[in-house]
Amino acid sequence: MGRTTRRLVLGAWLALAGATLGPNRGARADEGMWLINRPPTAAIKAACGIEPDAAWFEHIQRSCVRIGTGGSGSIVSADGLLMTNHHVGSDAIAKLSTPDRDLLEEGFLALSRADERRCPGLEVRILWQVSDVTDRVLSAVKPGSSDAEAGAAKRAAMTSIEAEAQQRDALVSEVVTLYQGARYHLYQYRRYDDVRLVFAPEQQAAFFGGDADNFEFPRFNLDVCFFRIYDDGKPLRPEHHLGWAETGVADQEPVFVFGHPGRTRRLYTLDHLAFLRDVELPARLARVWRTEVKLQTYSGRSRANARAAADDLLGVQNGRKVLTGQLAGLLDPALMARKRADETALRAFVESDPERTARWSDAWTKVAEAQRAYAAFFHRYDALGRGRPPLDGDLFDIAWTLTRWNLERTRPNEQRLREYRDSEADTIRLKLFAETPFNLDLEKEKLAAGLTWLAERLGGGDPRVVEALGGKSPADRAAELVDNAVVIRSVQSRKFVEPSGRQVIEKNRDTLIRLALALEGEARQLRVRYEDEVESVERAAYAKVAAARFAKEGENLYPDATFTLRVSFGAVRGYRDGGASIPAFTTIGGMFTRAADRAGDPAFALPDRWAKRRDKLDPKTPFNFICTADIIGGNSGSPVVNKDGKVIGLIFDGNIHSLVGDFVYDGTLNRALAVDARAIAHALDVLYDAKDLVKEITGKQ
Amino acid sequence: MGRTTRRLVLGAWLALAGATLGPNRGARADEGMWLINRPPTAAIKAACGIEPDAAWFEHIQRSCVRIGTGGSGSIVSADGLLMTNHHVGSDAIAKLSTPDRDLLEEGFLALSRADERRCPGLEVRILWQVSDVTDRVLSAVKPGSSDAEAGAAKRAAMTSIEAEAQQRDALVSEVVTLYQGARYHLYQYRRYDDVRLVFAPEQQAAFFGGDADNFEFPRFNLDVCFFRIYDDGKPLRPEHHLGWAETGVADQEPVFVFGHPGRTRRLYTLDHLAFLRDVELPARLARVWRTEVKLQTYSGRSRANARAAADDLLGVQNGRKVLTGQLAGLLDPALMARKRADETALRAFVESDPERTARWSDAWTKVAEAQRAYAAFFHRYDALGRGRPPLDGDLFDIAWTLTRWNLERTRPNEQRLREYRDSEADTIRLKLFAETPFNLDLEKEKLAAGLTWLAERLGGGDPRVVEALGGKSPADRAAELVDNAVVIRSVQSRKFVEPSGRQVIEKNRDTLIRLALALEGEARQLRVRYEDEVESVERAAYAKVAAARFAKEGENLYPDATFTLRVSFGAVRGYRDGGASIPAFTTIGGMFTRAADRAGDPAFALPDRWAKRRDKLDPKTPFNFICTADIIGGNSGSPVVNKDGKVIGLIFDGNIHSLVGDFVYDGTLNRALAVDARAIAHALDVLYDAKDLVKEITGKQ
Repeated sequence: MGRTTRRLVLGAWLALAGATLGPNRGARADEGMWLINRPPTAAIKAACGIEPDAAWFEHIQRSCVRIGTGGSGSIVSADGLLMTNHHVGSDAIAKLSTPDRDLLEEGFLALSRADERRCPGLEVRILWQVSDVTDRVLSAVKPGSSDAEAGAAKRAAMTSIEAEAQQRDALVSEVVTLYQGARYHLYQYRRYDDVRLVFAPEQQAAFFGGDADNFEFPRFNLDVCFFRIYDDGKPLRPEHHLGWAETGVADQEPVFVFGHPGRTRRLYTLDHLAFLRDVELPARLARVWRTEVKLQTYSGRSRANARAAADDLLGVQNGRKVLTGQLAGLLDPALMARKRADETALRAFVESDPERTARWSDAWTKVAEAQRAYAAFFHRYDALGRGRPPLDGDLFDIAWTLTRWNLERTRPNEQRLREYRDSEADTIRLKLFAETPFNLDLEKEKLAAGLTWLAERLGGGDPRVVEALGGKSPADRAAELVDNAVVIRSVQSRKFVEPSGRQVIEKNRDTLIRLALALEGEARQLRVRYEDEVESVERAAYAKVAAARFAKEGENLYPDATFTLRVSFGAVRGYRDGGASIPAFTTIGGMFTRAADRAGDPAFALPDRWAKRRDKLDPKTPFNFICTADIIGGNSGSPVVNKDGKVIGLIFDGNIHSLVGDFVYDGTLNRALAVDARAIAHALDVLYDAKDLVKEITGKQ
Repeated sequence: MGRTTRRLVLGAWLALAGATLGPNRGARADEGMWLINRPPTAAIKAACGIEPDAAWFEHIQRSCVRIGTGGSGSIVSADGLLMTNHHVGSDAIAKLSTPDRDLLEEGFLALSRADERRCPGLEVRILWQVSDVTDRVLSAVKPGSSDAEAGAAKRAAMTSIEAEAQQRDALVSEVVTLYQGARYHLYQYRRYDDVRLVFAPEQQAAFFGGDADNFEFPRFNLDVCFFRIYDDGKPLRPEHHLGWAETGVADQEPVFVFGHPGRTRRLYTLDHLAFLRDVELPARLARVWRTEVKLQTYSGRSRANARAAADDLLGVQNGRKVLTGQLAGLLDPALMARKRADETALRAFVESDPERTARWSDAWTKVAEAQRAYAAFFHRYDALGRGRPPLDGDLFDIAWTLTRWNLERTRPNEQRLREYRDSEADTIRLKLFAETPFNLDLEKEKLAAGLTWLAERLGGGDPRVVEALGGKSPADRAAELVDNAVVIRSVQSRKFVEPSGRQVIEKNRDTLIRLALALEGEARQLRVRYEDEVESVERAAYAKVAAARFAKEGENLYPDATFTLRVSFGAVRGYRDGGASIPAFTTIGGMFTRAADRAGDPAFALPDRWAKRRDKLDPKTPFNFICTADIIGGNSGSPVVNKDGKVIGLIFDGNIHSLVGDFVYDGTLNRALAVDARAIAHALDVLYDAKDLVKEITGKQ
């Protein structure tokens, strides 16, 4: 779990395509995370009664921002002001804090441009253009190739396309796999890495109610912060930015959400879902529980510890809630019955025709085979990180990236692990050279926990474990690893080592680099095995599943989420839950009522400023609202706009029923939660004395 | 995790026998949990300079009490007053609470005998006599038997011996396996099941510092409560009870601890420890983490939930700390090196002589084979409860016990699962018929979590899981199970069903009985497989290991702990930890300092009464102290007595270094924590106005 991977920053959901879905069919008009280059104009017209044109979409697209740490945002002023969630910015805010001044706890307001604080390691991207490169990717596959060979050829083609496009257009270029393998689109971005903090409220205001209220509604969260994008040392003068709605939003009004949903798995086959349910989710949950307990224990030891681990703890609690919700969905017979009905109908459609049978009918078996192949090495691959750093902690993350970056660059660009391709070099270096503070005590704690976890998963006598522990207990070893990480703890030394290549890195004496080297080899072998035996097989099979679906239902289907810009639409709308009627809006006054109801619980304590300035606030101001737009983790910080493209809110969470959105969308219960734009402007004005900021976003005094 | 299985109530540690242990040899004079029928008089004389006689031991033995929920205690007045830890009594205290009156939070003092509150389901036992039945148990094994046959024959012999002894002596009789299979002793108890609550402080006073300070020292815990044993409706007039020391205890003074250490694994072979490290502990930890997070989440939802789950949460947090400490010990190369040196020396001794080689040298291989056999079905057996109820919750526990009790009684006494032998009938019925309240919401929560866990471990398509879920989601199914458990929720109905036998139970419509039936069959098969392929093989092999050790080191070795009465001895003594010198005593004044240091943390909040009456307290009064006596989980509530056999303290915890005591004892760091008897009397007197109680235990006004 990275520090900011929480709430909607990461998540997962899976959409059934629209046509054949039985009982819930009628309720799902608002379903879909649609490609920005293929917006569902007819469906929007049917649902909302308006027909936005291409210029409307392009304006909003180029006002939107993808944030490096895993969230979404939008530019809301002519001077490059960037709005997102506090919980998307919290990692950066934490890194700007010092032992004397905890900006998460206190909040922050830059009193002038000079006071805006640059965030080390933070980058944002604006999607500039998208094109379809499916033909070129697929034509790289030689006839008669095995699935593994085809997969390698496609990955190599993607990397070549990116390298060419990057050079040609001076835009960061990324080929994205859609429909799990049926389509490939080239996404090209403007990239900015000078991002400065302008405003953040107290975390207690942003996350009032804490873990208990996370994914619940009614809510009362001012989950917003503002950054400013700088270009060449000056505030960016963007070509596009979003205006602020003058009058707010009303119940039942149509709304649009533009953001970067991270991942859904709505197109997975039943066998694939069974693998998630029985193998992958239990393994991930086991680690999340462990991490949560470890962080709670660490936090319990002192107030300083609690502060140091607060953001991590929120992240892991959020992850636990997401995974628990997903597993509950997969254990829900009604959900699985719906998935089964859909798959049965699609397979019957294929098998009702000899040609379709010949082309596509083996796809489901292939996916099942891939899961069986994966199960054979999943637990070992999982213990070794499943493509990510196998141990936690910022220092190890840097050591792992630096080590791999040196090793991978000894290979041709097209043969590297994809995240180390040349087109990502700037982003990799930004991370490696960021001047961020480390809490060495917490780093040791995380490494000790990680080493213990490795030993638990692989056994104390396993060669990787023996090498990682170096004859010491996990706690002693963790202390030694951090104390002697002389290269990794110094940006200067990292800059010196970064261009070294394999031989130098393999001889480096830095303890964390040596640890990364001890684990990296087998981790890479398993990664390649995963790509060859699982991913490549799945891609080939899912291309067939998608083709069958297109044949049956037409091409007007949205692909699963891929952390690329999508548009969702729907309406502001309450719902009924277990007999109770949940209205669509909360008010600022409601927050004070809730705080009184839960007096004594620190999660519901009012921030000092809110308690003291209560009489300045208009209690009737709408605070949070819910809408039916289809979102998922990664959508955190997405702007909610009205039919005029004006900002009316800011997505910050989904309700508890949205957690199964990884697999299905249910419009009767699934709701996206947003901070009302009126609450943002009102709080900035009367609580935080941020009049200049209010003027900048609303254009009004 | 049962509700009270915490701190020293359950736990685990493993002692090397005294003679050959290299570097720590000198420091371990205080090691050992000695059999009460073979007290280490010579060692006591050497260490403490006194020679207590048989009458001294018998007097204390018959003043001590084993508490059904898993702890220790002692009788401290001529009217049957029983002293133990608050955390040993907390389960009973919780069951006496009502929504209006939370006795855990408020505390309790009976103002008269009539006000003393009978605890449903609570029983205590006083060890009356012990005899060696090794020859009779071993002679039941026919020559040429396999290990599995021998194991079954021994278990049958144990049950027969118990049945005979119970009838002959009118004492509850229990044959205990010592040295993992080398010796069998018959323990016979007086049993009492009318136990009434007399006094409990606020839980916040008993467990000041909470999870953060658990297993730490310095500490400031008034972890005590008093019950009274009744016999025939009148206070017991015991033949023996402990007197109260007039002057307390001094630093370096010799002390004796009499209690019921639950389990240690100090005699385990290296292969057996590796199995614990690599298989068993990781699996147990995974469940503990999950349960902790689930309970935290449940508690976070409302104050009522937090109160309902508080005792469970403390229990599971304690379990997590114990297991984490054990795993850390097994991952500590120094500890494992010490175990290896010991095993190498013992095996060299065996192999240095042909006759010893022929008799004993295959024992280590046999233990390793048993672990391999166990690994083949461990995870499935673990998911199905490993001999305990596979799902959590009081209701399911009753359903499981009632179901098995009916099924097992269709077999001859000697062929049943041992815990359902006839000599345990009174204890089983006490549990089945206890009039205890249920929190149905929490019961549903636990069942839903348990069903999800089962699905995670076995897979959603597993026949047991499918049957357990009955086509519903875990949450829906849990609600249905609790709502329709018409027999289990009524004591009257349970009494009606209890004598039914197999046919009636198999046709019962109670949802929880049906669930128990669905899981019980395979769980029993796996239990039998465990007994045949693992336990019986281990018992035979460990009998050889112990024989070799006796041959090498003499018979003066203590066996691993077995939740039977043991005596430990040592001295009040501070220690050095990481350069810091930790004195042996804390004072009541120190508690107020600590509360001020940790102001704002609810775990360190002073109970109201303590804050308000602070000036009545003498701040210099010794509060908690540490001593070198060798203890483990199960010792909770053990009296600490001086050479005159008078009470000077009450064991309530070990320090963090005691957690590896499951496997080794290290006298330089391992410390037992006790509440000082002076603090108990002083607090009862000036804080709780319990003057009669003070007089009853001290004999003074």
